[in-house]
Amino acid sequence: MTNKPVKELVVSAIENGTVIDHIPAQSVFQVMKILGLDQVDSQVLFGTNLDSRKYGKKGIIKVQDKFFERDDVNKIALVAPIATIIEIRDFQVVRKEQVEIPDNALKIVKCVNPNCITNNENIPTKFRVIKDIQGELKLKCGYCEKYTNKENMVFI
Amino acid sequence: MTNKPVKELVVSAIENGTVIDHIPAQSVFQVMKILGLDQVDSQVLFGTNLDSRKYGKKGIIKVQDKFFERDDVNKIALVAPIATIIEIRDFQVVRKEQVEIPDNALKIVKCVNPNCITNNENIPTKFRVIKDIQGELKLKCGYCEKYTNKENMVFI
Repeated sequence: MTNKPVKELVVSAIENGTVIDHIPAQSVFQVMKILGLDQVDSQVLFGTNLDSRKYGKKGIIKVQDKFFERDDVNKIALVAPIATIIEIRDFQVVRKEQVEIPDNALKIVKCVNPNCITNNENIPTKFRVIKDIQGELKLKCGYCEKYTNKENMVFI
Repeated sequence: MTNKPVKELVVSAIENGTVIDHIPAQSVFQVMKILGLDQVDSQVLFGTNLDSRKYGKKGIIKVQDKFFERDDVNKIALVAPIATIIEIRDFQVVRKEQVEIPDNALKIVKCVNPNCITNNENIPTKFRVIKDIQGELKLKCGYCEKYTNKENMVFI
């Protein structure tokens, strides 16, 4: 058994890339899936269940040399509605924005209803994004009108 | 636009927990899935596509306040055969071990063959773990004898 203290893992500032902050701790894996970060060659760093003064527990993701389109970023609003997107270029913050909850969600989530036409024929899904009285997001299917809630969202 | 330099994200040393090092970059998400790290309340930190002097690109995972059973750890050998498991207690390395490739894989992976009895009846999967001449691991089903390779491994 060695007895030397464990080195700190210093995750240095990124030169160019994107930081996604204020992700609810339980949604970090979903966010990575939505953004396809399980498939990239870029350096990805993440932490979850980190303490946040503002939000209790949060997750954060840093992706080197990668920038996202507004539409892609807004998809994550479905599971991380208070996320902040920070673009870094040359070690400086060049943009910092909140995600925006889209009005419609097209071709990104499966409908929860197994009998929905989108699950049985080659028809892309479309939903209206609804906020319920608890402030939770739900998706109302444009075909079968069933609601898919956050827990049931399976991203395509 | 703010122009202040981006703070470093310093991921400090963990007091107690487990570090899993030398994970092939493309297997980090699978390792997290196998160990159920998408479900834990513990702080999880990870990086992937990091430069490794020894192995090119690697991934690393740190989990606070969590220790794994030998059997759980050996499951990850199927996708990360050179991973190192480091146990930390009170900021010190108390154990450092290589994963060991198990002889058999029971109830952890689905059989690739849709007609296999394990995919059609409530029978747990069992495989022999085989190393092919390229050194790649494959699983030979104990029922239908079909091979499930690394790319097709779906963890239960």
